[in-house]
Amino acid sequence: MSHGLYRIHPRDLTVIVNTGDDFRLHGLFISPDLDTVLYTLAEWADPVQGWGLQGDTQICAQQLARLGGETWFRLGDLDLATHLFRTQRLSQGATLSQVTEELARAAGLQVRLLPMCDEPVPTQLRLASGWVDFQDYFVRRQHSDPVLECRYQGADQTPPAAGVVEALMAAERIVLAPSNPFLSLQPIFSLRGFETLWGSCSARKVAVSPMIGQAAVKGPLASLLASLGQPVNSLGIARLLQNWIHVLILDEGDAALVPDIEKLGIQAVCIPTLMKTNQDRDRLARVALDV
Amino acid sequence: MSHGLYRIHPRDLTVIVNTGDDFRLHGLFISPDLDTVLYTLAEWADPVQGWGLQGDTQICAQQLARLGGETWFRLGDLDLATHLFRTQRLSQGATLSQVTEELARAAGLQVRLLPMCDEPVPTQLRLASGWVDFQDYFVRRQHSDPVLECRYQGADQTPPAAGVVEALMAAERIVLAPSNPFLSLQPIFSLRGFETLWGSCSARKVAVSPMIGQAAVKGPLASLLASLGQPVNSLGIARLLQNWIHVLILDEGDAALVPDIEKLGIQAVCIPTLMKTNQDRDRLARVALDV
Repeated sequence: MSHGLYRIHPRDLTVIVNTGDDFRLHGLFISPDLDTVLYTLAEWADPVQGWGLQGDTQICAQQLARLGGETWFRLGDLDLATHLFRTQRLSQGATLSQVTEELARAAGLQVRLLPMCDEPVPTQLRLASGWVDFQDYFVRRQHSDPVLECRYQGADQTPPAAGVVEALMAAERIVLAPSNPFLSLQPIFSLRGFETLWGSCSARKVAVSPMIGQAAVKGPLASLLASLGQPVNSLGIARLLQNWIHVLILDEGDAALVPDIEKLGIQAVCIPTLMKTNQDRDRLARVALDV
Repeated sequence: MSHGLYRIHPRDLTVIVNTGDDFRLHGLFISPDLDTVLYTLAEWADPVQGWGLQGDTQICAQQLARLGGETWFRLGDLDLATHLFRTQRLSQGATLSQVTEELARAAGLQVRLLPMCDEPVPTQLRLASGWVDFQDYFVRRQHSDPVLECRYQGADQTPPAAGVVEALMAAERIVLAPSNPFLSLQPIFSLRGFETLWGSCSARKVAVSPMIGQAAVKGPLASLLASLGQPVNSLGIARLLQNWIHVLILDEGDAALVPDIEKLGIQAVCIPTLMKTNQDRDRLARVALDV
């Protein structure tokens, strides 16, 4: 989604990214969502596997496996450079916002790319076996366990990054990209003062539903909606976002849900929402900016 | 040197390694001397450049340069795996001795490979501009500045690793490989209780001089000897080691120094000391074990 918005308005865009999935591995500070957005906007992303960098190699990861190291999170050699850069700059006292800006500049991006906050606010999930960290659930267990509860550790003590407040107050329009409400949006809305800030900014707020029919565009959203007691479709999304948005863009195939969504006080717009080509991305971005 | 000893006595050998050069970079815990010994004994070492791994690539390092990261210490992709492994295991609470043992086992080595101690004891050097860390002097400044003084931070508070004490007390013979006394031997001898331990162990103690004529086999030793006021040859080495060894093996071309070395109470043995082939290594190792 941010890719389409960036293609249309590269200079006027601020992208605010969830950092609840951040974690440390092998001493490195890894920000998977920031990296995915960075790589996507820079057109470095691997279009096939959906994460990591195009043409990346696994020379280090294969050697690490030979040494008996942990390899559940596969680090490409190019990808590693991002983590080394971030970790070094953080150890020198730079904030995550500063490092992110440096990386965006190095990638030649004109966009303002911001982490939701500068301190770690790790998302944790309660499974039948107890609380686990996000990457443990997502990568190591391949998000196969039912999730009973989510928490965002320390979010209520942590303010949004300085640039986030400025960006929201100055925004004419805010677009929530098709995102998992539990794992990508709620971490941001849980930050100290964020809901108040959101309520006081005058921008028109538009979300794109991450559900098409009963399936999520990607990731474990469908099973999360089910195990957390929501309808497994865009109505479930509308309910979760109802206090936050004016408009929900949902897939044209889900037009039957419109009356129930509009009962929640949300304007519903039906168009094709699956993005496979840049043309799809641009079209959806234009609708999100125009409705 | 350890390679020759290992080739002859793989099962009876303990190699104790200086860790004064260890440092953190990009969040990773790097032990250059341990890695060099590991790679050499495993026959993974790059025989041309004298550090790093044979056939290693620089995919990550090149990307890091593109991102604007620090690249004064070039990390190969295979080499990185060692640092990731070590950093992860240390962060899980393993000691440096344990991690080193795990790496040696993963590399298929039968030798006992030990760091001199488990805590950081960084070597620092006083240059005209002030105190700097070892890697700053050695890699970033390419050891071109005159060294006025050396110190081993915290050595007098830090005991040798547990295995080191055992190995010395059990040893029949101790061989000091051709090493820089200031940068590789003194850090070990500065550890808390080490001199006493050394004095109380009954092994025969043999050193191989790292000087051939007025040149060091490698590294900045000649300029260090000069700037720290010692003769720039094997007599300088003998003076620095005179309280620690029974025998000094020096190059056959330096026979003229023998009378002065023997006046120090050290037996001097002249043979070719330059090791280029495995045959050279085996021959020197045999002499070191027999004298």
